[in-house]
Amino acid sequence: MTLNSIAKELNLDCNSDINITGLNTLKDASNCEISFLENKKYLSDLKDTKAGAVFITEEFKNELPSNTIALITEHPYLSLAGLSKLFAPKVVETAGKKAVIGQNSTVMENVSIGKNTIIGNDVTLMSGAFIGDNITIGNNTIIYPNVTIYRDCTIGDDCIIHAGTVIGSDGFGFAHTKDGKYIKIYQNGNVTIGNDVEIGSNTSIDRAAFKSTIIEDGVRIDNLVHIAHNCVIGRGSIITGQCGFAGSSVLKEYVIMGAQSGVAGHLEIAPFTTISAKSGVTKSIKEPKKQWAGFPLMEHRTWLKLQGKINRLLTKDSK
Amino acid sequence: MTLNSIAKELNLDCNSDINITGLNTLKDASNCEISFLENKKYLSDLKDTKAGAVFITEEFKNELPSNTIALITEHPYLSLAGLSKLFAPKVVETAGKKAVIGQNSTVMENVSIGKNTIIGNDVTLMSGAFIGDNITIGNNTIIYPNVTIYRDCTIGDDCIIHAGTVIGSDGFGFAHTKDGKYIKIYQNGNVTIGNDVEIGSNTSIDRAAFKSTIIEDGVRIDNLVHIAHNCVIGRGSIITGQCGFAGSSVLKEYVIMGAQSGVAGHLEIAPFTTISAKSGVTKSIKEPKKQWAGFPLMEHRTWLKLQGKINRLLTKDSK
Amino acid sequence: MTLNSIAKELNLDCNSDINITGLNTLKDASNCEISFLENKKYLSDLKDTKAGAVFITEEFKNELPSNTIALITEHPYLSLAGLSKLFAPKVVETAGKKAVIGQNSTVMENVSIGKNTIIGNDVTLMSGAFIGDNITIGNNTIIYPNVTIYRDCTIGDDCIIHAGTVIGSDGFGFAHTKDGKYIKIYQNGNVTIGNDVEIGSNTSIDRAAFKSTIIEDGVRIDNLVHIAHNCVIGRGSIITGQCGFAGSSVLKEYVIMGAQSGVAGHLEIAPFTTISAKSGVTKSIKEPKKQWAGFPLMEHRTWLKLQGKINRLLTKDSK
Repeated sequence: MTLNSIAKELNLDCNSDINITGLNTLKDASNCEISFLENKKYLSDLKDTKAGAVFITEEFKNELPSNTIALITEHPYLSLAGLSKLFAPKVVETAGKKAVIGQNSTVMENVSIGKNTIIGNDVTLMSGAFIGDNITIGNNTIIYPNVTIYRDCTIGDDCIIHAGTVIGSDGFGFAHTKDGKYIKIYQNGNVTIGNDVEIGSNTSIDRAAFKSTIIEDGVRIDNLVHIAHNCVIGRGSIITGQCGFAGSSVLKEYVIMGAQSGVAGHLEIAPFTTISAKSGVTKSIKEPKKQWAGFPLMEHRTWLKLQGKINRLLTKDSK
Repeated sequence: MTLNSIAKELNLDCNSDINITGLNTLKDASNCEISFLENKKYLSDLKDTKAGAVFITEEFKNELPSNTIALITEHPYLSLAGLSKLFAPKVVETAGKKAVIGQNSTVMENVSIGKNTIIGNDVTLMSGAFIGDNITIGNNTIIYPNVTIYRDCTIGDDCIIHAGTVIGSDGFGFAHTKDGKYIKIYQNGNVTIGNDVEIGSNTSIDRAAFKSTIIEDGVRIDNLVHIAHNCVIGRGSIITGQCGFAGSSVLKEYVIMGAQSGVAGHLEIAPFTTISAKSGVTKSIKEPKKQWAGFPLMEHRTWLKLQGKINRLLTKDSK
Repeated sequence: MTLNSIAKELNLDCNSDINITGLNTLKDASNCEISFLENKKYLSDLKDTKAGAVFITEEFKNELPSNTIALITEHPYLSLAGLSKLFAPKVVETAGKKAVIGQNSTVMENVSIGKNTIIGNDVTLMSGAFIGDNITIGNNTIIYPNVTIYRDCTIGDDCIIHAGTVIGSDGFGFAHTKDGKYIKIYQNGNVTIGNDVEIGSNTSIDRAAFKSTIIEDGVRIDNLVHIAHNCVIGRGSIITGQCGFAGSSVLKEYVIMGAQSGVAGHLEIAPFTTISAKSGVTKSIKEPKKQWAGFPLMEHRTWLKLQGKINRLLTKDSK
């Protein structure tokens, strides 16, 4: 799609016929992609962006690198929402190649498999599983009943995905209009799951807005876990029951999350970190191999000290 | 069904042949409906009730309005449970009209659609979706795979319901017998979802005991959210991942609920309220546009102050 | 399988041809089963074990009862993982008897029923339900759409299981290798559900590693609840929305769990205990009929006192 035709669709001024293939963050966009600046705190990313064009307000247009085109808009994030719709793939492909199923794989009754999908060898797809369009599943993977895998996702070798789990549902993203309407940011990315990953039942892993939500090799995820768009769950991490992750949070390798704990958005958690049950992580954790607890989060030993103080407070009072 | 025949079924005394069409709360019951008084705190509702008849203990029968019939029972809530069963619709309709599917709508393989159901135009029903009896779905709505919509629910135009989500499962209601058995309150209401609503994956929205659980226009609900029977989620509200709502709670318009927060039953939350992540709302919030946090709940700025105090407490100790 | 052949598969030394039928805990193993000692705190169980053989390190082999064979291994839990795989049943049975469906039962379209499964009378199996191999379902039970019941589970009479719920997914169990790989403990047990049990939508109940995860008669479970392997939910207990239970926790009869509360692993909770919403139970509760709250857990009245103190702390500060 040319930049001109996109601008026309979104009622913006532009005079360039460069070819645009999608949208992305300021950091990750290539010169064929459009990005956006909504929030001042990303101004530092703006200077270094390689994006072909950027949705930007009049105020900041001079901060753009010389070879990036300004698409002036009062509401960059709303323009992005409009753009995301232009690049959204079909919900269901009507054309395309019939799925390829590898050797010695079992497809039970009532399984749906989309177009252009490739299933490896020795795979088991159980009844009620939905495998969308343009999906790759590696060898020796088991998909239990009533699992849903949305289009474009990839799953590695030797994975087990338990019943009712959803891979690739839309991330929770929308722009606000002045009159209180929400305009969907179409989630045009996917989920990529590495090798030797086991995921429990009724867990939800959302697809990325751009690029991928990533579950690295060897990860273990329990039941009823919520992983939002663009998260990265690092190699060998253990995510226990009912944990939740807001958007774009990154766990490095071998992080352990206790049950019912949560992680706010856009954070990074150092390798070999342990988060106690029911904790809430609201800041990035930079030092590896430590244990944390509570909400707001503190070192686990500090949390223990706090509980001791609370106990003394209660005892003192009863005298 | 006549009141006489109902009383006979439940082993109660009565001498009236008025026609009864269902059951309802004291506040909402019409003169064709039966209500109940189990808890003294609803005595004020009793005086103004328009119910045709009320299950009530001997003690309070004189508090009834003159044109409401007393159905004297030792255990009003147990009698209600018995009544709810008499009015429960069939789990699966065997008779009725074949569903009507609008123009340009897509029904993928392995979709089940019940009797008397009406699907709008440009709707997509993906594989494994279950659309029960007597359901209405508006135009341009997408139902992703393995979604279950129980009988009698209505869904508006331009909605998106992600995979694995359940709309209209039974609310969690039962009466206790003296010997420790639970008698089901059949959930004879439904769920009504407005226009332009998006609901994430693996979310559960229970049907009402009477009338409707309501999701108003423009609401956005994330993954793994639990909404109990008879809740109202106000227009434009944003419900993030893993939130939970107990029965009959009412959110006014544009409430924002942080992740993993919860709301106790029978509360009301004022418009434009923001609830921080992991909070627990245990009292109604009357003043609009404020931010709250913690459990028990306090104003967000108070919660921040509390964290400051806790920090100082910990620092003091380490000296 | 002979002990010799098992030892050979796992590269251990052994010289006995006794027949082994499975694996179990030190407490529960019979003389046809193999158990393991990984953690010193189970040394007391070791002395009394009736296991035919035990995976054990050199250090503790002399603690074994005389009629139990030592299988010396550096990593007992890893050996157990290897053993669990040897006894894991097939994911999908290809041979076996066609399911038997009782009188007056309804099986809707798109239902899958496995081999050797027995369905009672007056049962309703709704569309998209998956009923695996070797399952027993009692009379008058309703299985709502898109429920998944894994192989070998049993469900009693008069049960209701709501849409999207998963019964019998694998417990979250694995042994660690030195180089950071996780080796699955195959979950060869099952879930057994008593009579008159109602389970909400999108709940997950994991199968046991050995023996059974047990839901006793009369239990009520709400939506989005997580019950890990080998838990026991006692008769008449009420589990509200979004509660979570770690492995091997035992609730005695008539326990009430408030919404979003959690229970750590290997605990026991006394009869008629009430746990407030959002609490975290980290120690066993021995005295019955008490109410508890908070995380860490304290008596509910103590928790109320604590909130009073916090309020005073905040008021004092603002002067």
